[in-house]
Amino acid sequence: MAMSEFQIARAGDFEGREITLRGWLYNLRESGKIRFPIFRDGSGLMQAVVSKAEVSEAVWQRVGELTQESSVLARGTIHREPRAPGGFELVLRDLEVLQRVPEDDPYPIAPKEHGVDFLLSHRHLWIRSARQSALLRIRHEVVRAIREFFDSRGFFLTDAPILTPAACEGTTTLFGLDYFDLGQAYLTQSGQLYVEATAAALGKVYCFGPTFRAEKSKTRRHLTEFWMVEPEVAFATLDDLMKLGEDLVCHIIERVLQRRRPELEALERDTKRLERIKPPFPRISYDEALKLLHEKGSQLPWGEDLGGADETLLSEHFEKPVIIHRYPTKAKAFYMEPDPARPELALCMDMLAPEGFGEIIGGSQRLSSYELLRQRLREHNLPEEAFGWYLDLRRYGSVPHGGFGLGIERTTAWIAGIPHIRETIPFPRLLYRIYP
Amino acid sequence: MAMSEFQIARAGDFEGREITLRGWLYNLRESGKIRFPIFRDGSGLMQAVVSKAEVSEAVWQRVGELTQESSVLARGTIHREPRAPGGFELVLRDLEVLQRVPEDDPYPIAPKEHGVDFLLSHRHLWIRSARQSALLRIRHEVVRAIREFFDSRGFFLTDAPILTPAACEGTTTLFGLDYFDLGQAYLTQSGQLYVEATAAALGKVYCFGPTFRAEKSKTRRHLTEFWMVEPEVAFATLDDLMKLGEDLVCHIIERVLQRRRPELEALERDTKRLERIKPPFPRISYDEALKLLHEKGSQLPWGEDLGGADETLLSEHFEKPVIIHRYPTKAKAFYMEPDPARPELALCMDMLAPEGFGEIIGGSQRLSSYELLRQRLREHNLPEEAFGWYLDLRRYGSVPHGGFGLGIERTTAWIAGIPHIRETIPFPRLLYRIYP
Repeated sequence: MAMSEFQIARAGDFEGREITLRGWLYNLRESGKIRFPIFRDGSGLMQAVVSKAEVSEAVWQRVGELTQESSVLARGTIHREPRAPGGFELVLRDLEVLQRVPEDDPYPIAPKEHGVDFLLSHRHLWIRSARQSALLRIRHEVVRAIREFFDSRGFFLTDAPILTPAACEGTTTLFGLDYFDLGQAYLTQSGQLYVEATAAALGKVYCFGPTFRAEKSKTRRHLTEFWMVEPEVAFATLDDLMKLGEDLVCHIIERVLQRRRPELEALERDTKRLERIKPPFPRISYDEALKLLHEKGSQLPWGEDLGGADETLLSEHFEKPVIIHRYPTKAKAFYMEPDPARPELALCMDMLAPEGFGEIIGGSQRLSSYELLRQRLREHNLPEEAFGWYLDLRRYGSVPHGGFGLGIERTTAWIAGIPHIRETIPFPRLLYRIYP
Repeated sequence: MAMSEFQIARAGDFEGREITLRGWLYNLRESGKIRFPIFRDGSGLMQAVVSKAEVSEAVWQRVGELTQESSVLARGTIHREPRAPGGFELVLRDLEVLQRVPEDDPYPIAPKEHGVDFLLSHRHLWIRSARQSALLRIRHEVVRAIREFFDSRGFFLTDAPILTPAACEGTTTLFGLDYFDLGQAYLTQSGQLYVEATAAALGKVYCFGPTFRAEKSKTRRHLTEFWMVEPEVAFATLDDLMKLGEDLVCHIIERVLQRRRPELEALERDTKRLERIKPPFPRISYDEALKLLHEKGSQLPWGEDLGGADETLLSEHFEKPVIIHRYPTKAKAFYMEPDPARPELALCMDMLAPEGFGEIIGGSQRLSSYELLRQRLREHNLPEEAFGWYLDLRRYGSVPHGGFGLGIERTTAWIAGIPHIRETIPFPRLLYRIYP
């Protein structure tokens, strides 16, 4: 576990040295008097070479009897080998088997095709596969890049509560639970209202946590539990927010390309498409987007929010993420600042990833007027007393401010190039799945 | 919002330059023909100087009429001023008031004493105070240091699910909710079981998210919703875990001392006590801890877990965090590996912070034997079918492994030197509080 210990991903640092690989058997090939076990240790895959002539009879036997996912300590020397995946291989000298998976109870995920339901039921094991572990390492890098981005720009992380007394946007898609003697509490759908308060305290903030939606939808873009980062910035305008989102997304792509090439290759991702993601991103108004949609055959009337199919159409039209700004107020949530030039529009924006992946960011300037916010609460039939603290933010030192939310799973799915977001989170929660 | 914009915390970079401070009035002093408004912008506090002779009558008036928490754009020049807090001051030239808090509805948190219940009900505003915002910036730095530590050591972040089907340690302290047609789900108390699965996939992992405990306790160390980081390491031994915890805590302390000196000063923290926190930490066995407790008058019988009072006693005895290892198996959770030398003891450890702050880390090696794990589930009356996936980790390539959990709020409270953890999280959730 010490820093100097061998890891497959850093094999190059150990060239020519005796090491102990602690891991699991991924696959075993045999060619006459040479055996090629492939091991995994969590950081990557490494081929070993075992020559019958050069190891003891016992070691030769133990290697031959290895079963998939048996755990081992494999000792030997690291050699450069351009033909091996990763460019290095282990010339094996000794092998200790920690637990041999028995033939009569073999590892359930064989290298054959399995149905997705079977795989999801075995998610605790499925994540060991080359593809799934690559996906999780990319997710890790996405999260790391996001935190790095905000921390280096002077943002403060302010965790929003998960248990909330009131609903941000209605209660129909909320998970409710009993909270001691205080009645019903709900799992958060967004930390936004709370980071508006912390932005007034700390200036530039973000929250980053799980959010929940009890939606009865079974699409490839929905999970009931998903992670979201939500920056919120005092004094920010809509233009600032579009720029911030653009910079953030470019930074994430850059870091993943820099640090997770082998993983992108394992997923056969066309990285050229990612390399093209540089600022500026196209920015089009809702009106322009609607025109484009109508040209493509959509019937969406002015005033309605884009649906999944509309987003896919737009998302396929651009090579880069596209920012759509200034949606009709009536299609959006109650807390958005109206455009002073056209009050029927909100100072909001969505960002759609290309290649049909759809929305990854949604954000806006927030209402800063106390009177207008009260009016909107009434129009939306929201109880003013539940929003008392939120109204306070407009009574005491209100400032222009705004922010957005970026979905981690949708962003990871796009970057990794996989169609269903259920594979981008270690243990997905879906309408019909809460196990394992 | 751009990087080049003025921030109080970076005032030194702007010495001699014209800037716009975007912020709020924190306080206003007057001395004849000079006014000293103190502004805050989220990153810190800055004194401004307004000389009647050098500004227009209108600006002089506007400054004089500023009320607490009114939002402003203050323009002027940054000067070095050793007597000012922070070492710089703003020589004010112009002032624009965005929203003036009216006298007949003043900012509710005046610089007088308020009761804690009042302050918690106004948490959305209370966080603007110098002490509370310093605490949140320290929390931010604690989290940042933790992620930096694990990311730089090759750990992968693998988020554990919040919605879980089964209970890790009994259901009495769980929040339950209806999960569509799948029956009851529970909010997680710990991601440990899940990171055991991801550690077998990725080697070294951690999860970092909110955890929940529906405990009816009203102590200064309890929240119903709190954040925890849980590293889990394949092939780690108890000694590895103690070292990892020690290194982690030292890294956090080092970073906070390095980056949050002004905040520690604002909280009047005795930083000498933190500067002493260097490895190695004392490591004592449960048996040794019990001996020490008995000398101090405790009556705790062998075999029982330490209570809060015992932890405080031990915590006050040492200048550094103390690691207590090898508790009796019967006092601990079902999943711990027994000590081969004395099977009545578990290979586990707790770390107690000094100065009476008590437990900040709890961890262990995990059971690696399939048979023994099944036996323990039976002994603890836990349903084997709910733990089927967890048992699978021992059927397919079981390896020695272990990890621990570190509580963010308890760690922050200790570092900041404040007695009650409710102030270390933006919006605390307590037995009798879920608002705001």
